[in-house]
Amino acid sequence: MAKDKKMVEAITSMEEDFAQWYTDVVIKAELTDYTSVKGCMVIKPAGYAIWELIQRQLDDRFKAAGVENVYLPMFIPESLLQKEKDHVEGFAPEVAWVTQGGLSPLQEKLCVRPTSETLFCDFYKKEIESYRDLPKVYNQWCSVVRWEKETRPFLRSREFLWQEGHTAHATYEEAEARTIQMLNIYADFCEEVLAIPVIRGQKTDKEKFAGAEATYTIEALMHDGKALQSGTSHNFGNGFAKAFGIQYTDKDNQLQYIYQTSWGMTTRLIGAIIMVHGDDSGLVLPPKVAPTQVMIVPIMQQKEGVLEKAEELRSKLAEKVRIKVDTSEKSPGFKFAEQEMRGIPVRIEVGPRDIENNQAIVVRRDTGEKTTVSLDELETVIPALLETIQSDMFEKAKKHRDENTHVAENWDEFKNIIETKQGFIKAMWCGEEACETQIKDETGATTRCMPFVQEQLGRVCVHCGKPAKAMLYFGRAY
Amino acid sequence: MAKDKKMVEAITSMEEDFAQWYTDVVIKAELTDYTSVKGCMVIKPAGYAIWELIQRQLDDRFKAAGVENVYLPMFIPESLLQKEKDHVEGFAPEVAWVTQGGLSPLQEKLCVRPTSETLFCDFYKKEIESYRDLPKVYNQWCSVVRWEKETRPFLRSREFLWQEGHTAHATYEEAEARTIQMLNIYADFCEEVLAIPVIRGQKTDKEKFAGAEATYTIEALMHDGKALQSGTSHNFGNGFAKAFGIQYTDKDNQLQYIYQTSWGMTTRLIGAIIMVHGDDSGLVLPPKVAPTQVMIVPIMQQKEGVLEKAEELRSKLAEKVRIKVDTSEKSPGFKFAEQEMRGIPVRIEVGPRDIENNQAIVVRRDTGEKTTVSLDELETVIPALLETIQSDMFEKAKKHRDENTHVAENWDEFKNIIETKQGFIKAMWCGEEACETQIKDETGATTRCMPFVQEQLGRVCVHCGKPAKAMLYFGRAY
Repeated sequence: MAKDKKMVEAITSMEEDFAQWYTDVVIKAELTDYTSVKGCMVIKPAGYAIWELIQRQLDDRFKAAGVENVYLPMFIPESLLQKEKDHVEGFAPEVAWVTQGGLSPLQEKLCVRPTSETLFCDFYKKEIESYRDLPKVYNQWCSVVRWEKETRPFLRSREFLWQEGHTAHATYEEAEARTIQMLNIYADFCEEVLAIPVIRGQKTDKEKFAGAEATYTIEALMHDGKALQSGTSHNFGNGFAKAFGIQYTDKDNQLQYIYQTSWGMTTRLIGAIIMVHGDDSGLVLPPKVAPTQVMIVPIMQQKEGVLEKAEELRSKLAEKVRIKVDTSEKSPGFKFAEQEMRGIPVRIEVGPRDIENNQAIVVRRDTGEKTTVSLDELETVIPALLETIQSDMFEKAKKHRDENTHVAENWDEFKNIIETKQGFIKAMWCGEEACETQIKDETGATTRCMPFVQEQLGRVCVHCGKPAKAMLYFGRAY
Repeated sequence: MAKDKKMVEAITSMEEDFAQWYTDVVIKAELTDYTSVKGCMVIKPAGYAIWELIQRQLDDRFKAAGVENVYLPMFIPESLLQKEKDHVEGFAPEVAWVTQGGLSPLQEKLCVRPTSETLFCDFYKKEIESYRDLPKVYNQWCSVVRWEKETRPFLRSREFLWQEGHTAHATYEEAEARTIQMLNIYADFCEEVLAIPVIRGQKTDKEKFAGAEATYTIEALMHDGKALQSGTSHNFGNGFAKAFGIQYTDKDNQLQYIYQTSWGMTTRLIGAIIMVHGDDSGLVLPPKVAPTQVMIVPIMQQKEGVLEKAEELRSKLAEKVRIKVDTSEKSPGFKFAEQEMRGIPVRIEVGPRDIENNQAIVVRRDTGEKTTVSLDELETVIPALLETIQSDMFEKAKKHRDENTHVAENWDEFKNIIETKQGFIKAMWCGEEACETQIKDETGATTRCMPFVQEQLGRVCVHCGKPAKAMLYFGRAY
């Protein structure tokens, strides 16, 4: 069946210009658009519905892990932001400042939260007195603001939506365990729900979060071979507690500082879905985050009985899957192109001849594969097919990631890979920040993480030749 | 069973000082607390969980009415806010202004949204070209900022959470129908989910929203006899469309202005729940918005088998109701007081003797009524009891509302009611704003609404004696 020209021709191909392809998809799939507010985007219904599915499923996993949701103010007084030295240095250059409230100038300026560690510290200082008040495992869903110069839809914008978890514990060990627990929840969520394989590991000191003792990350590989940091989890030790004076009385009636963590995931995940799964026909959504999982396209819908049958099928399947019928006046070809652009995982085509033969054509968005299915079997075939698509999409992304992960045993190999290939580079590292900086300056590749699963790829640093301390993932990144 | 002194003595009684009772409840029930950010509150887990239940159930009703969720920026450029004259006059005096982004002053200052009509206009201007693009029925869940001088938890704060729906239509009639439809969804939600009876009606011109042609409202009566505006829905006609130049091409290829509506409900609803249903033991939650609907309190929990039985009961009931066991080391009396303070609708007490007799004590939070129930019947008794509590709470609130609604046929009666009674006053009105203002100045009572259900209470205005145009509800309000 010929695709509708008008809709499809407008997309740049991935191979030609990946960045333009990305922009075309976010606009044409109606996920987002630019606004009059520079650097800020609108998330349109098709995009927000994906975010709602992400939120719901991630929040369920949080609640199962004992997380409670709260809401803290969006403003941070300047004096509060400044209490932890590293933190303020990291964030002050990129915050928006409120200096006037109503008709009067403010006595103290307030920044719009870029993240809420300082507010949670202020809150916990009031809430926590004794070991009985610990742990606190709180999270909030909100928007944050970072005054970025260069912005891209979903990947980097001045305002974005996220969740930020902030926890307080009696011991360093408990805080560390929670930091890792939440990173694993993120990783499992990405793999099981978004069908995106991730590398779990620790950031180097150079790349860690402002004020953290340790930052853990999950790193995904996009279709163009660039890495995307997809979620981070930070162990603050008792650094913030000391800066803010947050102490509790332990069982022996001694004052102790609390230990803290924070962890976040953002609307950037929608960018990851696009760049991992998308193709030249547009978006390809994993079934678990597809607001519409199945679109029924009636063929020759003006013929008697076609729309009725389409509606009958929809109604039968609606208990098991998120399904719609496209009853608009557009041509079937236009509807196919539109369904493909929007990434709807499965299309069911049903026309007069199909009805006569008690069958329908079922088309997979991810592979384009078409099968003829008896109408009596749709109720079992479709839910199973969605599961197959979900796992096939993960396997395909994993294969791409693995095929684009290279080992560099020495500096010539490293440079050669950077110049001729794309993807992750695994290599040994001496542990020196100076070396890390030189690698970045010479190649544009940053350290993505020290993976939890370490491999012994040699005994010396890939760059300087000194004894190696750890294996790292390197890559160019968003 | 004696209540724990420590917890209960700290609450002021409603009769003694209603405002202080309210503050005591929000703090002691751990719904919210003050922060270092003046005028902004933190919503704590017990409060936020109520908001999540409100969100989920209201959002389900929105989706069933064809509403789609989106997200627009939190900033409004000054020039955009100023486009609609009445609107900017209403809001400019109470917005927070961002004047600096990162390290540089902004070229144009941005306000933090107090409401998003202007942003939706800017968005719709880009989105809508033809009648095929209509209607747009969008909503967003977000926080907004209004620089209030006097604040009270949930009722009035500088930042609050809400939803704001914004729709665009081809005709005035369609916009009007949507305005009323959403008001009715709000009213049904309040009555069916929050167990709060409301009066549905229209605001006078003096009280309508800045920029609206018509504002509709639902008004609830609090326990102290003061009114609370609980949700509003506005028909803007094509006023905003003209100010922003938002036109579409109709079927005859003619340019037409669109017609718009907006409607919102806020975290203020949590304040309404407290002030309608609460009592001197604390919060009383309607089961449909109770994060925990049933608390099992084990008696003599150190005795063998008690905690096991409590857990067995919890596990059996968990599929049907939101239920917990309080296994903490506190005394039963303390646990009772805590459960009452938090407004948990039902308590199940189970101790060694109860287990021996295969029974438990079931206590209603709303009435204090205790019954003995066979353990075998809990699974049917408890869900039914929650339904009974839900409807009894509505009936009780409605009875209170009706008993505190008075008719004033002349000005002496009006003044007499204001001086000696509390609650709503129904009276006839001439339709003149001057008269409305004088009534407010003389008595402190504002016009709450012109109810949809009009009654003929006389032929002349209760204040000036001129011919009456409508029946109004008056009252002192939050």
